[in-house]
Amino acid sequence: MRNLGFYDKINEQIIVSKDVSDLRILGLDPGIAIVGFGVIEAQRGQFHSLTYGAIRTEAGLPLSERLEIIYNDLNQLLDSLRPEAVAVEELFFNTNITTGISVAHGRGILLLACRQKGIPIYEYTPLQVKQSVVGYGRAEKKQIMEMVRRMLHLTEIPRPDDAADALAIALCHGRAATSLLFQAGEKSQCSTI
Amino acid sequence: MRNLGFYDKINEQIIVSKDVSDLRILGLDPGIAIVGFGVIEAQRGQFHSLTYGAIRTEAGLPLSERLEIIYNDLNQLLDSLRPEAVAVEELFFNTNITTGISVAHGRGILLLACRQKGIPIYEYTPLQVKQSVVGYGRAEKKQIMEMVRRMLHLTEIPRPDDAADALAIALCHGRAATSLLFQAGEKSQCSTI
Repeated sequence: MRNLGFYDKINEQIIVSKDVSDLRILGLDPGIAIVGFGVIEAQRGQFHSLTYGAIRTEAGLPLSERLEIIYNDLNQLLDSLRPEAVAVEELFFNTNITTGISVAHGRGILLLACRQKGIPIYEYTPLQVKQSVVGYGRAEKKQIMEMVRRMLHLTEIPRPDDAADALAIALCHGRAATSLLFQAGEKSQCSTI
Repeated sequence: MRNLGFYDKINEQIIVSKDVSDLRILGLDPGIAIVGFGVIEAQRGQFHSLTYGAIRTEAGLPLSERLEIIYNDLNQLLDSLRPEAVAVEELFFNTNITTGISVAHGRGILLLACRQKGIPIYEYTPLQVKQSVVGYGRAEKKQIMEMVRRMLHLTEIPRPDDAADALAIALCHGRAATSLLFQAGEKSQCSTI
């Protein structure tokens, strides 16, 4: 992982290395049928998209087989894209608990695969993602999608929605990680899991 | 895996091989802080316990690290104990959804590890386990523990509770798997996941 700068305890100031904002981030939107992913690079305060898409598993397959597909496909992605940080959305279930349980199974697989590769993992709530990307915690899905398109200088909104969500999560971490506060060890907006 | 007998389509009868009831089953009680496990062998309609215990992870560790510990420890268990079938309890959460989500993360890891080893996985609801082991779906925890002790010819109730639960799940599958109905392809009490 490239040096992101460090906090000089003696002089109480932040030492920023040249490539401080040069960071490759993988955003992941957990699921079982579809896992959205999006890789961005943060360079000198600007973000651009390297690739995005989705890992898909068929509905009729046993849960264990779907989990294995997600694990294998994510490992391929990690090997080929070599992200330096992974940002994953936190789960909240107020509506469908059955779906929530299977999504949590899948999210466990994402965390395991990233952990096994030694990639730092950060989690963000949907509220944090909205606040970071749109600047408003109650932003609508359309607004988030449009901001993702603009921030990444894309001509169209990324499809599927799960990939756009994953890019939004990556952007959320990109903003937190390249802020001086974050580099000084202030992690109010993110946590390793 | 040893031959469990097969259904003779021509004569429409069940052909039972000599070692039909000779099966090594790993029962798993999912969790994050503690994963109960219990290995039993079914031989000629009798069950006995090979080993039981729990995989534990420290509360303060990041979730991804706890998942990795569970994955590594379970893989060690699978390699040393070589079960021919795995029985896992289904998850139901009416009370603590936050705990439920983290347990589901851990359960995903159990399913992945068993799937990667090619071991057939069967799931049972708590109701099915109670009905199979005690014969009564509303049986209390104490009754289940006592029946586990008796069925496995143990002098004491296995500890911790999670290990006793895991043995109960293994026994539930043992009864289903060694029944003629199951061998004929009737899987009303279990399903692969």
